Amino acid sequence: MVDPRFYRRGDPLSLGDIAKSIGANLANPETSDRSIKDVASLDVAGSGDLSLFYHRRHVHVFAETRAGAVITTDVLSRHARPGMCLLFASDPRLAFAQAGYMFYRPPVLEPAIDPQAHVDSTAEVGPGCRIEAGAIIGPAAQIGPHCHIAGHAVIAEGVVLGAGCRIGANSSISHALIGARVEIGSCCTIGGPGFGFVTGPRGLLRVPQLGRVVIEDDVSIDANCAVDRGTDGDTVIGAGTAIDNLVQIAHNVRVGRHCAIAGQSGIAGSTVIGHGVVIGGQVAISDHLTIGGGARIAFKSAVIRDVEPGMSVGGYPAMPVRLWHRQTAGLARLFGRRGPTAATRLSALDMAET
Amino acid sequence: MVDPRFYRRGDPLSLGDIAKSIGANLANPETSDRSIKDVASLDVAGSGDLSLFYHRRHVHVFAETRAGAVITTDVLSRHARPGMCLLFASDPRLAFAQAGYMFYRPPVLEPAIDPQAHVDSTAEVGPGCRIEAGAIIGPAAQIGPHCHIAGHAVIAEGVVLGAGCRIGANSSISHALIGARVEIGSCCTIGGPGFGFVTGPRGLLRVPQLGRVVIEDDVSIDANCAVDRGTDGDTVIGAGTAIDNLVQIAHNVRVGRHCAIAGQSGIAGSTVIGHGVVIGGQVAISDHLTIGGGARIAFKSAVIRDVEPGMSVGGYPAMPVRLWHRQTAGLARLFGRRGPTAATRLSALDMAET
Amino acid sequence: MVDPRFYRRGDPLSLGDIAKSIGANLANPETSDRSIKDVASLDVAGSGDLSLFYHRRHVHVFAETRAGAVITTDVLSRHARPGMCLLFASDPRLAFAQAGYMFYRPPVLEPAIDPQAHVDSTAEVGPGCRIEAGAIIGPAAQIGPHCHIAGHAVIAEGVVLGAGCRIGANSSISHALIGARVEIGSCCTIGGPGFGFVTGPRGLLRVPQLGRVVIEDDVSIDANCAVDRGTDGDTVIGAGTAIDNLVQIAHNVRVGRHCAIAGQSGIAGSTVIGHGVVIGGQVAISDHLTIGGGARIAFKSAVIRDVEPGMSVGGYPAMPVRLWHRQTAGLARLFGRRGPTAATRLSALDMAET
Repeated sequence: MVDPRFYRRGDPLSLGDIAKSIGANLANPETSDRSIKDVASLDVAGSGDLSLFYHRRHVHVFAETRAGAVITTDVLSRHARPGMCLLFASDPRLAFAQAGYMFYRPPVLEPAIDPQAHVDSTAEVGPGCRIEAGAIIGPAAQIGPHCHIAGHAVIAEGVVLGAGCRIGANSSISHALIGARVEIGSCCTIGGPGFGFVTGPRGLLRVPQLGRVVIEDDVSIDANCAVDRGTDGDTVIGAGTAIDNLVQIAHNVRVGRHCAIAGQSGIAGSTVIGHGVVIGGQVAISDHLTIGGGARIAFKSAVIRDVEPGMSVGGYPAMPVRLWHRQTAGLARLFGRRGPTAATRLSALDMAET
Repeated sequence: MVDPRFYRRGDPLSLGDIAKSIGANLANPETSDRSIKDVASLDVAGSGDLSLFYHRRHVHVFAETRAGAVITTDVLSRHARPGMCLLFASDPRLAFAQAGYMFYRPPVLEPAIDPQAHVDSTAEVGPGCRIEAGAIIGPAAQIGPHCHIAGHAVIAEGVVLGAGCRIGANSSISHALIGARVEIGSCCTIGGPGFGFVTGPRGLLRVPQLGRVVIEDDVSIDANCAVDRGTDGDTVIGAGTAIDNLVQIAHNVRVGRHCAIAGQSGIAGSTVIGHGVVIGGQVAISDHLTIGGGARIAFKSAVIRDVEPGMSVGGYPAMPVRLWHRQTAGLARLFGRRGPTAATRLSALDMAET
Repeated sequence: MVDPRFYRRGDPLSLGDIAKSIGANLANPETSDRSIKDVASLDVAGSGDLSLFYHRRHVHVFAETRAGAVITTDVLSRHARPGMCLLFASDPRLAFAQAGYMFYRPPVLEPAIDPQAHVDSTAEVGPGCRIEAGAIIGPAAQIGPHCHIAGHAVIAEGVVLGAGCRIGANSSISHALIGARVEIGSCCTIGGPGFGFVTGPRGLLRVPQLGRVVIEDDVSIDANCAVDRGTDGDTVIGAGTAIDNLVQIAHNVRVGRHCAIAGQSGIAGSTVIGHGVVIGGQVAISDHLTIGGGARIAFKSAVIRDVEPGMSVGGYPAMPVRLWHRQTAGLARLFGRRGPTAATRLSALDMAET
C-alpha cells in the first residue's frame, strides 16, 4: 500500500511485541508469534497486515477483511468472523496509530550541515542537527540538538530552537523562542510584525512591534501559517497544541495547551484561548476575547463574544450550538419547504481518520 | 498596453491566419490580409489591435472602439458601426484568449541547470528542463522533460513530475506524483502531513500520514496553497482542475476533473468532489462529504451536507440557492426596511474577465 | 521588557526632547530633564520608563503604575495620582508609538550584497542596498537605493522597487512596479497570474494574464499574502494602505489609499475599493463591486453588492450594520431564549493595541 519511494518500512514484528508496545491485549494468546509486516486499512489489508476496526459503520468491511490481525474493542469484536485474529485496546485508533509508528518511524536523518547552508559564525548549532542546502541560521541563533532545518528555511537573529525541532522548507522564523520537538511546516512565517496601527500625520503608522513569539514543547504548526509576534509581550502557543495549514495567529494571542486549530482559521489580536480548545476550519475569532478551556468552536463560525469553558458554539455570529440549530431549523420552517437540519458537524474539525 | 518589461510580443499576424487558428470566421473575407500586431480591450485598442466584444453591457465601448478588428458573435454584430472589421466565433472569449496566446506565448526558457541549483546525484532530470538557482531536487526524484523549476523550489525525495510542469519559486513538494503540464505557483506546500490526530497519553498524537498527493495532467494550482497528502491512500486533484490562491485541500480529498476552486476556499478531509464542480471563494466544505459532479457552490458558503450533482447551493449552512434567497429575503421583510436581495453572484467565482 | 536578543534599544533621552519630537506637552515643565531609557506598558513600567494611558478601562492600572512618565490626555489626567509625571498629547497612542521608535529604530543594516545572492548582470541595484544570501534579482530588475531584500526572496525580471523597500524572506515578486518605502513580509506572492478562465476544447484555458501589479508608496503587506497581476491592466494597491497576513487580492482589483485590510480577507477580481476603507478579518468581497471611500466592513462579512461611501456593513450577506443587528436580534427573539446581541465589533479589525 505504502509507496516505498516516500516511506521506509521497518522489519516485521511479532504480534505479541506489537501488542505489548501499544498496550493492547491479544484475544487469543496463541497468536503472539504471528509475524506482522505492515499496517493497512481493512479493505486492502492482507494476511501479513495489521488493521483497525473502531466504528460500527465499517462493520461490513470488517466482515470481509483479509487482514492478518485487527485492533478493535471487546464490544465491537462480536462482529468478528470465527477465527479472526484480534487485539483489544481501550482506544483502538490510538493503538493503531502507535503500531503504525512501529513500522514507519520518522526518518533518521544523518547529521550534517550542508555546505550550501548559511550558518552565521555566532550561531550555536547543537549536536546531531541536519541543516539542508540554502537554510540560513542568523547571528546568535541557538539551534538545539537533533533539529532538522529544511532547505531555504530562514532562522533569524537570536531565535532559539529546543531539541528535536523540525522546520519546513522555505519557512521564516524571527523573534521567537521555540521549545523542544516543535514541528513547523513549509512556507510558514513565525514572528512577523503584528497588524497594529495608529493614524499619524502621513497615514497609518505601525505601532512598534517589540514582542516575541513563544512556542512551547510538542507544538505542531502545519504549512503556510502566519504567527505574529507580540506588541510588547509575547504571542504564545501552548504545549502540545496542533495547528493546521493556513492559520493566522495575530499578535498577543495566547493559545493554551493541547488545543487543535483546523485549517484557515484566524485568531485576532490579544485573544486568549484556554487549554484543550478545539477550533474547526475557517473559524474567525475576534480580538480581545477569552475562550474558556475545553470549548469547541464549529467550523466557519464567527466568534464575537467570550465563550465559557466547555461550551460548544457555532454560527454567524457564534452562539451556543443548540441555539444555532434552533434558529437554523426555525428559519427553514418559516421560509423553506424542507429546511436543512444544520447538523453542526463538529466532526468538521477533521480530527478523525477515514 | 502590455508592458514590454514583463511580456514579449510576437510578430504581427494576418487576420486570416488568426481567424484560422482560433476557429473564427471573417465577416468580410477581404480583410484576411489585414495585419494585426496585438490584442487589446475595446477602450484602448488601436487600428493594429484585435479586440473582443462579447456582452451587451459593453455596447457603448464597442460603438466607439478604434480597434482594427473585433471578435464577436453574429448576434452581437448588429451593434457594429458600418465598415467595422469583425470576426465571428461561437465563443468569442475563448477565441480572444486563443488569439492572445498567438501574440504572447509563454516564454521559452533556455534549458539549463543553474550551477547554484542543488540536484541530487540520484535524481533524474529530463531533457529541456530549466532549473533555477537555489532549486533543490531530492534523491530519486524524477523530473520530466521541459519542466521549469523556479528559484528555491524544493522537490523532495521520490517526487515525480511529468513533462512540461512549471513549479513556482519557494514552493515545496513532497510525497507527490504529478502529471504533465501541471503548473504550481509560488509558496505552495504540496504533500504536507494531514491534520489527523488521536489523543494519546501525552496529548495529541498525529496519526501516521503515509499517503501521497496525486495531481493529474493539466492541473493549475496558484500561489500559497496547501495540499496535504493522504493518510494511507492518496489525495487526488483531477485532470484539468484549476485552483486559485490560498486554497487548502486536506488529506484524502479527491477533487474531480475540470473543477474550478476560487481563492481561500478549503476542503476538509476525505471529502469527494465530482467532475466539473465550481466552487466560489472562501467556501468551506466539511469533511467526509460528497459533492456531485457539476455542482456549484456560492462564494463564502459553509457546506455541511452532501450536495447532489448539478445542484447550486449557498449560505451558512449551505442550502439550495433558491431556498437561501427565500430565507434571506424573508428575513429582510421580517426585520428590515429594505432587505438585500441576496443576489447570489455565482459570478463571484471570478471566472469572467472585465 | 524587550528582549535584547531581538531588539536594540537606543540611548536614554530627556523627557523634554521626547515631548518635543512627538508633539506632546509636559504637564510640569520642570520634568523636562528627566532621563527616560525605555517605553513600557503601565503594568510593567519602572521609574526609567515612559508609558501610555489612553482609555478609561485602564484606569486601575494607571493608578498603580510605577512608570517614570506617562503620555495621556488632559481629560484622562484627572485620574492621576498627585505628583505623577505626565505628558499631554492630542492622540496619546500616536505619540507613544512615535516615542517607541525613538528608542527602537528599525535596524540599520550594513549595505552589502551577499556573495551567495544571485544578482543578474543586467539588474540595477541602487546604493545602500542589503541583499541577503539566496536572494535572486532577475534580469533588468531595478532595485532602488537602501532596499533590504531578505534571504531567498525572488525579484523577477523587470520588477521595479523604489527607495527604501523591504522584502521578506522567501517572497516572490514578478510583473510589478513598486513604490518607495514599501514593506512586504515573508512568503508573499506578488504578481501571480489571475484566476480567469474560459472553457476550451480541452477544458479550462486560462485567459492570458498580461497585466501588472502596481504598489504605491508606503504600502505594507504582511506575511503569506497573494496579490495577482491584472489581466491586461493593473492590479493597484494605493499609497499608505496596510494589508495583514494571508490576504488575497485578485486580478484587476484597485485598492485605494490608506486602507486597512485585516487578516485572511479576500477581494475578488476587478473590485474597486475607495480610499480609507477599513476591512475586518476573513471578509470576502465579491468581484466587480465598488466599495466607497471610508466604508467599514465588519469582520467575516460576505459583501455581494456595492457599498456606499462611509457606510458600515456586516453580515452574510453583508447589509448595513444596523439592519444586520436588527435581524440577528430578531432571530434570537423568535427562536432563542437569550439571543446574542451581535455586537458587531468593528474593533475586530484589530487596529488597537492591548
